[in-house]
Amino acid sequence: MTKPLILISNDDGITSPGISALVETMLELGEVIVVAPDKPQSAMGHAITINQPIRLTKVELFQGVESWQCSGTPVDCVKIAIDKILPRKPDLMVSGINHGSNSSINVIYSGTMSAAMEGAIDGMKAIGFSLCDYSWEADFIPAKPFIKKIAENVLTNDLPYGTLLNVNIPKPDDGVIKGIKVCRQAQAKWKEDFDQRTDPFGRTYYWMTGKFVNMDHGQDTDEWALQNGYISVVPTMFDLTDHQRIGAINNWDLNG
Amino acid sequence: MTKPLILISNDDGITSPGISALVETMLELGEVIVVAPDKPQSAMGHAITINQPIRLTKVELFQGVESWQCSGTPVDCVKIAIDKILPRKPDLMVSGINHGSNSSINVIYSGTMSAAMEGAIDGMKAIGFSLCDYSWEADFIPAKPFIKKIAENVLTNDLPYGTLLNVNIPKPDDGVIKGIKVCRQAQAKWKEDFDQRTDPFGRTYYWMTGKFVNMDHGQDTDEWALQNGYISVVPTMFDLTDHQRIGAINNWDLNG
Repeated sequence: MTKPLILISNDDGITSPGISALVETMLELGEVIVVAPDKPQSAMGHAITINQPIRLTKVELFQGVESWQCSGTPVDCVKIAIDKILPRKPDLMVSGINHGSNSSINVIYSGTMSAAMEGAIDGMKAIGFSLCDYSWEADFIPAKPFIKKIAENVLTNDLPYGTLLNVNIPKPDDGVIKGIKVCRQAQAKWKEDFDQRTDPFGRTYYWMTGKFVNMDHGQDTDEWALQNGYISVVPTMFDLTDHQRIGAINNWDLNG
Repeated sequence: MTKPLILISNDDGITSPGISALVETMLELGEVIVVAPDKPQSAMGHAITINQPIRLTKVELFQGVESWQCSGTPVDCVKIAIDKILPRKPDLMVSGINHGSNSSINVIYSGTMSAAMEGAIDGMKAIGFSLCDYSWEADFIPAKPFIKKIAENVLTNDLPYGTLLNVNIPKPDDGVIKGIKVCRQAQAKWKEDFDQRTDPFGRTYYWMTGKFVNMDHGQDTDEWALQNGYISVVPTMFDLTDHQRIGAINNWDLNG
């Protein structure tokens, strides 16, 4: 039997400890190809590079693993992998492990999740993995058996076209991950707070900062799971249609 | 009665003819504030700028309209408008008019739609407008009465938190727009085709190109509407949860 082919990308860049941990875990399940950004590309969302050329360079970073670094965004990495690198459609595409949470509304801004979503749009089974620890020295070891379990389940079970998984892994104070919960995306947002400064030439500039506000008290959300020591698994779609709203808007006076 | 306050942004940049046409149309409905990128930012998706400072400059471009150009992405523009510029929550946020289609899967890559989505996340009623004509010299005049009608309807009718509108305007061969249809996002994707070249120094580089593939034959889609001379209005959500899938995944062997 052929081993599953697994494509790996991320948004923290190909030299991040998070992608190393993901490569190690996926090598237990199949053959791995890595195509990842040559520099950090966090918060790039689903950006693609259309006004600049893209560079692609083969690198030796992970023993026995074909690996490429790409000058583009996370989504560019997946697109160029599909067109120029992959010998066949992968059985699985995984992105991460992100250094930091991509739960709730963060799914929209996340390069990690956008890479996974691009794989899903192309018809791959896809998962984005994120650890709720922004540190470069984050400890990925406790997460590995859970990541393996989730990936095995995706390889084995039915995950229809149009849906991928957004997986976030908590960092509980006592170090104990309690298990895995299937959740919905919490209703939450960032409250902007731009830090205003003056440059040496007297001109104003701003740094984006913000505070995360969770407006959602449901116990079926990813935020609840993470705060209670569980890994959150949110089935995530790229059909953004609010199907239930179509009827109401048809009653508006649009063609009068 | 206070006139409605309308925030305008886009992704083609503050000097694009498309945003001019939108400003002119919105001035018929209320008071307008423009905060838009200082350069083209197409295909930026929901990217935000976290590793660089942001510049914000007041400009005189539209008579009697407070206007700011911002060095960031379309989403940055909306965020900094909220924190630093807007005197109160706008009654409406509109983005565009984009030079080129943002129908079907393009909603995911579109800076135009991401600006509108950011407004919606903050609780504004929001609409992204796109004309199916990539030309800088595109004719926006036939679209204007329809854009006004749609904006009036959004100001007047209920559009609950969580949903915004993705509006695409066709460019029919006979110049006649037949009307407005409320649609779902077509199931479609881009088939990547990277154009490989060699630079003067002998190194390979790539330009992203691609072919749009519509896999969806439904007559209730935005693609169908546009190909048949209708404006498409897709109610669009930022809750990406595939709620229907939660039950099935709960039957997987995740906690065994």
